[in-house]
Amino acid sequence: MQNQSEARETAQEWVFGRNAVLEALKSGRAADTLFWARGETGGSVGAILALCREQGVVVKEADRRKLQRLCGSEAHQGVLLLAAAHAYAALEDIFALAELRGEPPFLLLCDEIEDPHNLGAMLRTAEAAGVHGVIVPKRRCAPLSMAVSKASAGAVEYIPVARVSNLSQTMEELKRRGVWIYGADMQGLPYCGQRMQGACALVIGSEGKGLGRLVKERCDVLLSLPMRGKITSLNASVAAGILLFEIAKGRQAADMSGS
Amino acid sequence: MQNQSEARETAQEWVFGRNAVLEALKSGRAADTLFWARGETGGSVGAILALCREQGVVVKEADRRKLQRLCGSEAHQGVLLLAAAHAYAALEDIFALAELRGEPPFLLLCDEIEDPHNLGAMLRTAEAAGVHGVIVPKRRCAPLSMAVSKASAGAVEYIPVARVSNLSQTMEELKRRGVWIYGADMQGLPYCGQRMQGACALVIGSEGKGLGRLVKERCDVLLSLPMRGKITSLNASVAAGILLFEIAKGRQAADMSGS
Repeated sequence: MQNQSEARETAQEWVFGRNAVLEALKSGRAADTLFWARGETGGSVGAILALCREQGVVVKEADRRKLQRLCGSEAHQGVLLLAAAHAYAALEDIFALAELRGEPPFLLLCDEIEDPHNLGAMLRTAEAAGVHGVIVPKRRCAPLSMAVSKASAGAVEYIPVARVSNLSQTMEELKRRGVWIYGADMQGLPYCGQRMQGACALVIGSEGKGLGRLVKERCDVLLSLPMRGKITSLNASVAAGILLFEIAKGRQAADMSGS
Repeated sequence: MQNQSEARETAQEWVFGRNAVLEALKSGRAADTLFWARGETGGSVGAILALCREQGVVVKEADRRKLQRLCGSEAHQGVLLLAAAHAYAALEDIFALAELRGEPPFLLLCDEIEDPHNLGAMLRTAEAAGVHGVIVPKRRCAPLSMAVSKASAGAVEYIPVARVSNLSQTMEELKRRGVWIYGADMQGLPYCGQRMQGACALVIGSEGKGLGRLVKERCDVLLSLPMRGKITSLNASVAAGILLFEIAKGRQAADMSGS
Protein backbone atom coordinates (compact mmCIF):
# COMPACT_ATOMS: atom_id res chain seq x y z
CA MET A 1 0.00 0.00 0.00
CA GLN A 2 2.69 2.41 1.01
CA ASN A 3 4.87 1.80 -2.05
CA GLN A 4 1.88 2.03 -4.29
CA SER A 5 0.87 5.38 -2.83
CA GLU A 6 4.36 6.74 -3.00
CA ALA A 7 4.71 5.70 -6.62
CA ARG A 8 1.50 7.51 -7.33
CA GLU A 9 2.77 10.73 -5.85
CA THR A 10 5.09 11.22 -8.81
CA ALA A 11 2.88 9.57 -11.42
CA GLN A 12 -0.28 10.47 -13.24
CA GLU A 13 -3.83 9.53 -12.43
CA TRP A 14 -7.36 9.77 -13.78
CA VAL A 15 -9.72 12.38 -12.43
CA PHE A 16 -13.35 11.91 -13.45
CA GLY A 17 -16.78 13.32 -12.85
CA ARG A 18 -17.65 16.91 -13.76
CA ASN A 19 -17.12 18.49 -10.34
CA ALA A 20 -13.83 16.72 -9.75
CA VAL A 21 -12.46 17.55 -13.23
CA LEU A 22 -13.60 21.16 -13.04
CA GLU A 23 -11.96 21.66 -9.64
CA ALA A 24 -8.75 19.93 -10.80
CA LEU A 25 -8.48 22.33 -13.74
CA LYS A 26 -9.41 25.40 -11.68
CA SER A 27 -6.78 24.55 -9.07
CA GLY A 28 -4.10 24.74 -11.76
CA ARG A 29 -3.03 21.13 -11.30
CA ALA A 30 -0.88 19.90 -14.20
CA ALA A 31 -2.96 17.94 -16.72
CA ASP A 32 -2.22 16.36 -20.09
CA THR A 33 -5.37 15.16 -21.73
CA LEU A 34 -9.11 15.37 -21.33
CA PHE A 35 -11.21 12.50 -22.70
CA TRP A 36 -14.62 13.85 -23.53
CA ALA A 37 -17.65 11.70 -24.39
CA ARG A 38 -19.26 12.87 -27.61
CA GLY A 39 -22.53 14.63 -27.11
CA GLU A 40 -22.01 15.39 -23.41
CA THR A 41 -22.53 19.13 -23.32
CA GLY A 42 -24.72 20.08 -20.36
CA GLY A 43 -23.82 21.45 -16.95
CA SER A 44 -20.20 22.42 -16.39
CA VAL A 45 -18.88 20.68 -19.54
CA GLY A 46 -18.62 24.03 -21.33
CA ALA A 47 -16.51 25.49 -18.53
CA ILE A 48 -14.32 22.37 -18.49
CA LEU A 49 -13.64 22.60 -22.24
CA ALA A 50 -12.88 26.32 -21.97
CA LEU A 51 -10.36 25.72 -19.15
CA CYS A 52 -8.70 22.97 -21.22
CA ARG A 53 -8.30 25.38 -24.16
CA GLU A 54 -6.91 28.06 -21.84
CA GLN A 55 -4.41 25.68 -20.23
CA GLY A 56 -3.35 23.82 -23.36
CA VAL A 57 -4.86 20.53 -22.24
CA VAL A 58 -5.45 18.27 -25.25
CA VAL A 59 -9.13 17.34 -25.64
CA LYS A 60 -9.82 13.92 -27.18
CA GLU A 61 -13.33 12.86 -28.10
CA ALA A 62 -14.22 9.26 -27.33
CA ASP A 63 -17.32 7.24 -26.67
CA ARG A 64 -18.65 6.68 -23.17
CA ARG A 65 -17.52 3.04 -23.11
CA LYS A 66 -13.91 4.05 -23.71
CA LEU A 67 -14.09 6.49 -20.78
CA GLN A 68 -15.55 3.76 -18.61
CA ARG A 69 -12.79 1.36 -19.62
CA LEU A 70 -10.06 3.89 -18.90
CA CYS A 71 -11.21 4.88 -15.43
CA GLY A 72 -12.96 1.65 -14.47
CA SER A 73 -16.14 3.44 -13.40
CA GLU A 74 -19.47 4.43 -14.92
CA ALA A 75 -19.54 7.63 -12.88
CA HIS A 76 -17.39 9.72 -15.23
CA GLN A 77 -20.28 11.94 -16.42
CA GLY A 78 -18.61 12.22 -19.83
CA VAL A 79 -15.29 13.75 -18.70
CA LEU A 80 -12.04 12.07 -17.72
CA LEU A 81 -8.82 13.99 -17.11
CA LEU A 82 -5.30 12.59 -17.10
CA ALA A 83 -3.64 14.74 -14.43
CA ALA A 84 -0.50 14.76 -12.33
CA ALA A 85 -1.14 12.49 -9.36
CA HIS A 86 -2.16 14.20 -6.18
CA ALA A 87 0.76 15.00 -3.90
CA TYR A 88 0.58 14.69 -0.14
CA ALA A 89 1.39 17.77 1.94
CA ALA A 90 3.71 18.09 4.92
CA LEU A 91 2.47 19.01 8.40
CA GLU A 92 4.28 22.33 7.95
CA ASP A 93 2.15 23.15 4.89
CA ILE A 94 -0.96 22.92 7.04
CA PHE A 95 0.41 25.28 9.70
CA ALA A 96 1.60 27.62 6.93
CA LEU A 97 -1.90 27.76 5.42
CA ALA A 98 -3.39 28.65 8.82
CA GLU A 99 -0.82 31.41 9.24
CA LEU A 100 -1.48 32.70 5.74
CA ARG A 101 -5.18 32.99 6.56
CA GLY A 102 -4.39 34.61 9.92
CA GLU A 103 -6.33 31.93 11.79
CA PRO A 104 -5.43 29.53 14.61
CA PRO A 105 -4.77 26.09 13.07
CA PHE A 106 -7.84 23.86 12.52
CA LEU A 107 -7.17 20.23 11.56
CA LEU A 108 -9.02 17.01 10.91
CA LEU A 109 -7.35 13.69 11.74
CA CYS A 110 -8.76 10.54 10.16
CA ASP A 111 -8.07 7.37 12.14
CA GLU A 112 -8.30 4.32 9.86
CA ILE A 113 -10.94 5.59 7.46
CA GLU A 114 -10.60 2.86 4.85
CA ASP A 115 -13.71 3.58 2.81
CA PRO A 116 -12.81 5.98 -0.04
CA HIS A 117 -16.30 7.47 -0.17
CA ASN A 118 -16.20 8.30 3.50
CA LEU A 119 -12.71 9.79 3.22
CA GLY A 120 -13.73 11.84 0.18
CA ALA A 121 -16.89 13.11 1.88
CA MET A 122 -14.81 14.06 4.92
CA LEU A 123 -12.33 16.04 2.79
CA ARG A 124 -15.21 17.88 1.15
CA THR A 125 -16.86 18.70 4.48
CA ALA A 126 -13.55 19.67 6.12
CA GLU A 127 -12.67 22.04 3.29
CA ALA A 128 -16.10 23.66 3.51
CA ALA A 129 -15.81 24.01 7.30
CA GLY A 130 -12.56 25.97 6.89
CA VAL A 131 -10.19 23.21 8.05
CA HIS A 132 -6.57 23.99 7.07
CA GLY A 133 -5.47 20.41 6.56
CA VAL A 134 -6.25 16.75 7.05
CA ILE A 135 -3.88 14.19 8.55
CA VAL A 136 -4.17 10.52 7.63
CA PRO A 137 -2.06 7.57 8.77
CA LYS A 138 0.05 5.74 6.18
CA ARG A 139 -1.48 2.40 7.12
CA ARG A 140 -5.10 1.40 7.09
CA CYS A 141 -6.36 4.53 5.36
CA ALA A 142 -7.78 4.84 1.85
CA PRO A 143 -5.15 6.36 -0.51
CA LEU A 144 -6.02 9.57 -2.36
CA SER A 145 -7.48 7.65 -5.28
CA MET A 146 -9.90 8.66 -7.98
CA ALA A 147 -12.79 7.44 -5.89
CA VAL A 148 -11.70 9.72 -3.01
CA SER A 149 -11.28 12.65 -5.39
CA LYS A 150 -14.73 12.10 -6.89
CA ALA A 151 -16.41 11.72 -3.48
CA SER A 152 -14.66 14.89 -2.32
CA ALA A 153 -16.34 16.83 -5.19
CA GLY A 154 -12.93 18.28 -5.98
CA ALA A 155 -12.06 19.36 -2.43
CA VAL A 156 -8.93 17.20 -2.55
CA GLU A 157 -7.49 19.89 -4.85
CA TYR A 158 -7.76 22.59 -2.21
CA ILE A 159 -7.16 21.02 1.15
CA PRO A 160 -3.66 19.80 2.10
CA VAL A 161 -3.60 16.15 3.14
CA ALA A 162 -0.55 15.00 5.14
CA ARG A 163 0.27 11.35 5.59
CA VAL A 164 2.07 10.29 8.76
CA SER A 165 3.60 7.03 9.96
CA ASN A 166 2.08 7.16 13.41
CA LEU A 167 -1.04 9.14 14.17
CA SER A 168 -0.69 9.10 17.95
CA GLN A 169 2.91 10.42 17.75
CA THR A 170 1.71 13.21 15.46
CA MET A 171 -0.95 14.05 18.05
CA GLU A 172 1.84 14.54 20.63
CA GLU A 173 3.59 16.86 18.17
CA LEU A 174 0.38 18.83 17.63
CA LYS A 175 -0.12 19.18 21.38
CA ARG A 176 3.43 20.52 21.78
CA ARG A 177 2.50 23.13 19.19
CA GLY A 178 -0.51 24.22 21.21
CA VAL A 179 -3.24 22.40 19.30
CA TRP A 180 -6.15 21.21 21.44
CA ILE A 181 -7.38 17.78 20.33
CA TYR A 182 -11.02 16.68 20.31
CA GLY A 183 -11.88 13.05 19.63
CA ALA A 184 -15.28 11.83 18.48
CA ASP A 185 -16.34 9.01 20.77
CA MET A 186 -19.68 7.62 21.93
CA GLN A 187 -18.50 7.74 25.56
CA GLY A 188 -17.40 11.38 25.34
CA LEU A 189 -18.92 14.52 26.85
CA PRO A 190 -21.98 15.98 25.09
CA TYR A 191 -20.62 18.12 22.27
CA CYS A 192 -22.92 21.08 22.82
CA GLY A 193 -21.67 22.25 26.18
CA GLN A 194 -18.06 22.72 25.00
CA ARG A 195 -16.36 26.06 24.50
CA MET A 196 -14.50 25.57 21.25
CA GLN A 197 -11.92 28.09 20.16
CA GLY A 198 -8.27 28.54 19.28
CA ALA A 199 -5.95 26.03 17.63
CA CYS A 200 -7.67 22.67 17.51
CA ALA A 201 -8.00 19.33 15.80
CA LEU A 202 -10.80 16.79 15.56
CA VAL A 203 -10.06 13.06 15.34
CA ILE A 204 -12.66 10.81 13.70
CA GLY A 205 -12.41 7.01 13.72
CA SER A 206 -14.03 4.44 11.49
CA GLU A 207 -17.72 3.71 11.96
CA GLY A 208 -17.22 0.13 12.94
CA LYS A 209 -14.33 0.41 15.33
CA GLY A 210 -14.25 4.02 16.49
CA LEU A 211 -10.96 5.52 17.66
CA GLY A 212 -7.96 3.30 18.29
CA ARG A 213 -6.95 2.93 21.95
CA LEU A 214 -3.71 4.94 21.75
CA VAL A 215 -5.31 7.65 19.65
CA LYS A 216 -8.20 7.93 22.09
CA GLU A 217 -5.81 8.29 25.05
CA ARG A 218 -3.98 11.15 23.31
CA CYS A 219 -7.17 13.25 22.90
CA ASP A 220 -7.61 16.22 25.24
CA VAL A 221 -11.39 15.82 25.28
CA LEU A 222 -13.73 13.19 23.88
CA LEU A 223 -16.98 14.52 22.42
CA SER A 224 -20.18 12.59 21.77
CA LEU A 225 -23.22 13.37 19.67
CA PRO A 226 -26.51 12.59 21.44
CA MET A 227 -28.27 9.68 19.70
CA ARG A 228 -31.94 10.47 20.20
CA GLY A 229 -33.37 7.39 18.45
CA LYS A 230 -32.63 3.69 18.36
CA ILE A 231 -29.75 3.87 15.92
CA THR A 232 -26.49 3.99 17.85
CA SER A 233 -24.09 5.63 15.41
CA LEU A 234 -23.87 8.05 12.52
CA ASN A 235 -22.04 7.74 9.24
CA ALA A 236 -18.43 8.89 9.90
CA SER A 237 -18.63 11.76 7.43
CA VAL A 238 -21.93 13.00 8.87
CA ALA A 239 -20.50 12.90 12.42
CA ALA A 240 -17.40 14.75 11.16
CA GLY A 241 -19.63 17.35 9.51
CA ILE A 242 -21.69 18.06 12.62
CA LEU A 243 -18.61 18.37 14.86
CA LEU A 244 -16.48 20.37 12.38
CA PHE A 245 -19.25 22.90 11.82
CA GLU A 246 -19.83 23.16 15.57
CA ILE A 247 -16.12 23.83 16.14
CA ALA A 248 -16.04 26.32 13.25
CA LYS A 249 -18.99 28.16 14.82
CA GLY A 250 -17.25 28.32 18.20
CA ARG A 251 -14.02 29.59 16.65
CA GLN A 252 -15.88 32.28 14.73
CA ALA A 253 -17.78 33.42 17.82
CA ALA A 254 -14.48 33.61 19.75
CA ASP A 255 -12.89 35.55 16.91
CA MET A 256 -15.75 38.06 16.76
CA SER A 257 -15.70 38.62 20.49
CA GLY A 258 -11.94 39.24 20.19
CA SER A 259 -11.04 36.51 22.66
CA MET B 1 -42.29 3.96 -10.41
CA GLN B 2 -45.45 4.58 -8.42
CA ASN B 3 -47.08 1.27 -9.30
CA GLN B 4 -43.88 -0.58 -8.63
CA SER B 5 -43.55 1.00 -5.19
CA GLU B 6 -47.16 0.36 -4.31
CA ALA B 7 -46.85 -3.28 -5.34
CA ARG B 8 -43.82 -3.53 -3.11
CA GLU B 9 -45.71 -2.23 -0.12
CA THR B 10 -47.65 -5.49 0.10
CA ALA B 11 -44.88 -7.77 -1.18
CA GLN B 12 -41.65 -9.13 0.16
CA GLU B 13 -38.16 -7.80 -0.29
CA TRP B 14 -34.55 -8.63 0.44
CA VAL B 15 -32.81 -6.98 3.36
CA PHE B 16 -29.03 -7.46 3.39
CA GLY B 17 -25.94 -6.36 5.27
CA ARG B 18 -25.46 -7.20 8.95
CA ASN B 19 -26.69 -3.92 10.43
CA ALA B 20 -29.76 -3.79 8.20
CA VAL B 21 -30.70 -7.44 8.85
CA LEU B 22 -30.12 -7.12 12.60
CA GLU B 23 -32.30 -4.02 12.84
CA ALA B 24 -35.02 -5.61 10.68
CA LEU B 25 -35.19 -8.59 13.05
CA LYS B 26 -35.01 -6.46 16.20
CA SER B 27 -37.84 -4.24 14.97
CA GLY B 28 -40.12 -7.30 14.79
CA ARG B 29 -40.73 -6.95 11.07
CA ALA B 30 -42.24 -10.12 9.58
CA ALA B 31 -39.56 -12.28 7.95
CA ASP B 32 -39.58 -15.70 6.27
CA THR B 33 -36.09 -16.85 5.56
CA LEU B 34 -32.50 -15.91 6.28
CA PHE B 35 -29.88 -16.91 3.72
CA TRP B 36 -26.58 -17.26 5.53
CA ALA B 37 -23.20 -17.64 3.82
CA ARG B 38 -21.30 -20.61 5.21
CA GLY B 39 -18.41 -19.65 7.39
CA GLU B 40 -19.57 -16.08 8.05
CA THR B 41 -19.58 -15.97 11.83
CA GLY B 42 -17.98 -12.73 13.04
CA GLY B 43 -19.55 -9.49 14.29
CA SER B 44 -23.31 -9.50 14.74
CA VAL B 45 -23.92 -12.77 12.85
CA GLY B 46 -24.38 -14.65 16.16
CA ALA B 47 -27.05 -12.19 17.30
CA ILE B 48 -28.77 -12.43 13.91
CA LEU B 49 -28.94 -16.24 14.06
CA ALA B 50 -30.22 -16.13 17.65
CA LEU B 51 -33.01 -13.72 16.69
CA CYS B 52 -33.97 -15.96 13.75
CA ARG B 53 -34.26 -18.94 16.10
CA GLU B 54 -36.32 -16.89 18.54
CA GLN B 55 -38.70 -15.64 15.82
CA GLY B 56 -39.01 -18.87 13.86
CA VAL B 57 -37.25 -17.50 10.80
CA VAL B 58 -35.92 -20.36 8.66
CA VAL B 59 -32.13 -20.20 8.24
CA LYS B 60 -30.77 -21.58 4.97
CA GLU B 61 -27.06 -21.96 4.41
CA ALA B 62 -25.80 -21.02 0.96
CA ASP B 63 -22.57 -19.89 -0.62
CA ARG B 64 -21.70 -16.22 -1.03
CA ARG B 65 -22.35 -16.30 -4.77
CA LYS B 66 -25.92 -17.40 -4.26
CA LEU B 67 -26.50 -14.52 -1.83
CA GLN B 68 -25.02 -12.13 -4.35
CA ARG B 69 -27.23 -13.51 -7.12
CA LEU B 70 -30.38 -13.21 -4.98
CA CYS B 71 -29.88 -9.62 -3.85
CA GLY B 72 -27.84 -8.37 -6.81
CA SER B 73 -25.14 -6.87 -4.63
CA GLU B 74 -21.79 -7.89 -3.18
CA ALA B 75 -22.45 -5.92 -0.01
CA HIS B 76 -24.50 -8.58 1.76
CA GLN B 77 -21.81 -9.37 4.38
CA GLY B 78 -22.99 -13.00 4.45
CA VAL B 79 -26.61 -12.39 5.52
CA LEU B 80 -29.70 -11.88 3.40
CA LEU B 81 -33.21 -11.76 4.84
CA LEU B 82 -36.48 -12.25 2.98
CA ALA B 83 -38.78 -9.89 4.85
CA ALA B 84 -42.16 -8.25 4.42
CA ALA B 85 -41.63 -5.20 2.24
CA HIS B 86 -41.32 -1.95 4.04
CA ALA B 87 -44.62 -0.12 4.37
CA TYR B 88 -44.95 3.62 4.05
CA ALA B 89 -46.49 5.52 6.94
CA ALA B 90 -49.24 8.12 6.88
CA LEU B 91 -48.70 11.72 7.94
CA GLU B 92 -50.90 10.96 10.95
CA ASP B 93 -48.47 8.24 12.11
CA ILE B 94 -45.71 10.83 12.33
CA PHE B 95 -47.81 13.23 14.42
CA ALA B 96 -48.92 10.30 16.59
CA LEU B 97 -45.29 9.33 17.27
CA ALA B 98 -44.46 12.90 18.33
CA GLU B 99 -47.45 12.90 20.66
CA LEU B 100 -46.48 9.52 22.08
CA ARG B 101 -43.04 10.89 22.91
CA GLY B 102 -44.54 14.07 24.35
CA GLU B 103 -42.53 16.24 21.97
CA PRO B 104 -43.46 18.91 19.45
CA PRO B 105 -43.37 17.32 15.97
CA PHE B 106 -39.97 17.27 14.22
CA LEU B 107 -39.94 16.27 10.55
CA LEU B 108 -37.55 15.94 7.65
CA LEU B 109 -38.81 16.55 4.11
CA CYS B 110 -36.72 15.24 1.22
CA ASP B 111 -37.22 17.14 -2.04
CA GLU B 112 -36.21 14.95 -5.01
CA ILE B 113 -33.46 12.95 -3.31
CA GLU B 114 -32.99 10.35 -6.06
CA ASP B 115 -29.76 8.78 -4.84
CA PRO B 116 -30.57 5.81 -2.58
CA HIS B 117 -27.35 6.19 -0.57
CA ASN B 118 -28.13 9.79 0.19
CA LEU B 119 -31.72 8.97 1.14
CA GLY B 120 -30.56 6.09 3.36
CA ALA B 121 -27.92 8.23 5.07
CA MET B 122 -30.55 10.92 5.67
CA LEU B 123 -32.96 8.41 7.26
CA ARG B 124 -30.16 7.19 9.56
CA THR B 125 -29.17 10.72 10.56
CA ALA B 126 -32.78 11.84 11.01
CA GLU B 127 -33.58 8.88 13.25
CA ALA B 128 -30.51 9.60 15.38
CA ALA B 129 -31.41 13.30 15.62
CA GLY B 130 -34.81 12.40 17.07
CA VAL B 131 -36.90 13.21 13.99
CA HIS B 132 -40.40 11.70 14.22
CA GLY B 133 -40.88 11.07 10.53
CA VAL B 134 -39.63 11.72 7.02
CA ILE B 135 -41.78 12.86 4.12
CA VAL B 136 -40.82 12.06 0.54
CA PRO B 137 -42.62 12.90 -2.69
CA LYS B 138 -44.02 10.03 -4.81
CA ARG B 139 -42.17 11.24 -7.88
CA ARG B 140 -38.46 11.79 -8.33
CA CYS B 141 -37.46 10.21 -5.03
CA ALA B 142 -35.60 6.96 -4.47
CA PRO B 143 -38.07 4.22 -3.34
CA LEU B 144 -37.43 2.47 -0.03
CA SER B 145 -35.26 -0.17 -1.69
CA MET B 146 -32.67 -2.52 -0.28
CA ALA B 147 -29.96 0.00 -1.08
CA VAL B 148 -31.77 2.66 0.98
CA SER B 149 -32.27 0.22 3.83
CA LYS B 150 -28.58 -0.75 3.81
CA ALA B 151 -27.38 2.87 3.66
CA SER B 152 -29.73 3.72 6.54
CA ALA B 153 -27.96 1.10 8.72
CA GLY B 154 -31.40 -0.20 9.64
CA ALA B 155 -32.94 3.18 10.56
CA VAL B 156 -35.65 2.62 7.95
CA GLU B 157 -37.11 0.09 10.41
CA TYR B 158 -37.63 2.70 13.11
CA ILE B 159 -38.50 5.96 11.43
CA PRO B 160 -41.88 6.39 9.71
CA VAL B 161 -41.56 7.46 6.07
CA ALA B 162 -44.64 8.99 4.46
CA ARG B 163 -44.98 9.34 0.71
CA VAL B 164 -47.06 12.22 -0.63
CA SER B 165 -48.24 13.23 -4.09
CA ASN B 166 -47.30 16.85 -3.78
CA LEU B 167 -44.66 18.06 -1.35
CA SER B 168 -45.56 21.74 -1.49
CA GLN B 169 -49.23 20.99 -0.73
CA THR B 170 -48.14 18.88 2.23
CA MET B 171 -46.06 21.82 3.44
CA GLU B 172 -49.23 23.94 3.46
CA GLU B 173 -50.94 21.24 5.52
CA LEU B 174 -48.00 21.16 7.95
CA LYS B 175 -48.12 24.93 8.33
CA ARG B 176 -51.84 24.79 9.10
CA ARG B 177 -50.96 22.34 11.87
CA GLY B 178 -48.48 24.76 13.38
CA VAL B 179 -45.25 23.30 12.01
CA TRP B 180 -42.56 25.87 11.24
CA ILE B 181 -40.68 24.99 8.05
CA TYR B 182 -36.96 25.53 7.52
CA GLY B 183 -35.46 25.04 4.06
CA ALA B 184 -31.78 24.43 3.38
CA ASP B 185 -30.68 26.90 0.72
CA MET B 186 -27.37 28.55 -0.16
CA GLN B 187 -29.09 31.97 -0.26
CA GLY B 188 -30.67 31.54 3.17
CA LEU B 189 -29.90 33.20 6.49
CA PRO B 190 -26.87 31.92 8.43
CA TYR B 191 -28.09 28.90 10.36
CA CYS B 192 -26.37 29.76 13.63
CA GLY B 193 -28.28 32.89 14.52
CA GLN B 194 -31.68 31.17 14.48
CA ARG B 195 -33.77 30.37 17.52
CA MET B 196 -35.03 26.89 16.81
CA GLN B 197 -37.77 25.40 18.92
CA GLY B 198 -41.27 23.97 18.83
CA ALA B 199 -42.89 22.01 16.03
CA CYS B 200 -40.70 22.20 12.96
CA ALA B 201 -39.63 20.57 9.73
CA LEU B 202 -36.47 20.79 7.65
CA VAL B 203 -36.60 20.53 3.86
CA ILE B 204 -33.49 19.31 2.03
CA GLY B 205 -33.16 19.34 -1.77
CA SER B 206 -30.87 17.42 -4.05
CA GLU B 207 -27.22 18.44 -4.21
CA GLY B 208 -27.31 19.39 -7.86
CA LYS B 209 -30.54 21.32 -8.02
CA GLY B 210 -31.33 22.40 -4.47
CA LEU B 211 -34.94 23.04 -3.49
CA GLY B 212 -37.63 23.24 -6.15
CA ARG B 213 -39.11 26.71 -6.70
CA LEU B 214 -42.55 26.00 -5.21
CA VAL B 215 -41.07 24.13 -2.26
CA LYS B 216 -38.66 26.99 -1.58
CA GLU B 217 -41.50 29.54 -1.63
CA ARG B 218 -43.43 27.51 0.94
CA CYS B 219 -40.59 27.55 3.51
CA ASP B 220 -40.96 29.89 6.47
CA VAL B 221 -37.19 30.52 6.67
CA LEU B 222 -34.31 29.50 4.43
CA LEU B 223 -31.12 28.54 6.26
CA SER B 224 -27.60 28.40 4.84
CA LEU B 225 -24.43 26.78 6.08
CA PRO B 226 -21.37 29.03 5.78
CA MET B 227 -18.96 27.62 3.20
CA ARG B 228 -15.56 28.66 4.53
CA GLY B 229 -13.43 27.18 1.72
CA LYS B 230 -13.60 27.02 -2.05
CA ILE B 231 -16.07 24.18 -2.28
CA THR B 232 -19.57 25.59 -2.67
CA SER B 233 -21.78 22.80 -1.38
CA LEU B 234 -21.92 19.87 1.00
CA ASN B 235 -23.19 16.36 0.46
CA ALA B 236 -26.98 16.46 1.02
CA SER B 237 -26.84 13.99 3.93
CA VAL B 238 -24.02 15.91 5.65
CA ALA B 239 -25.93 19.19 5.29
CA ALA B 240 -29.04 17.47 6.66
CA GLY B 241 -27.00 16.14 9.60
CA ILE B 242 -25.58 19.52 10.57
CA LEU B 243 -28.97 21.26 10.38
CA LEU B 244 -30.98 18.47 12.07
CA PHE B 245 -28.57 18.30 15.01
CA GLU B 246 -28.60 22.10 15.30
CA ILE B 247 -32.41 22.09 15.39
CA ALA B 248 -32.43 19.20 17.89
CA LYS B 249 -30.06 21.17 20.12
CA GLY B 250 -32.29 24.25 19.97
CA ARG B 251 -35.40 22.22 20.75
CA GLN B 252 -33.70 20.57 23.72
CA ALA B 253 -32.49 23.91 25.11
CA ALA B 254 -36.02 25.33 24.77
CA ASP B 255 -37.42 22.26 26.48
CA MET B 256 -34.98 22.52 29.40
CA SER B 257 -35.66 26.21 29.89
CA GLY B 258 -39.38 25.35 29.93
CA SER B 259 -40.22 27.70 27.06
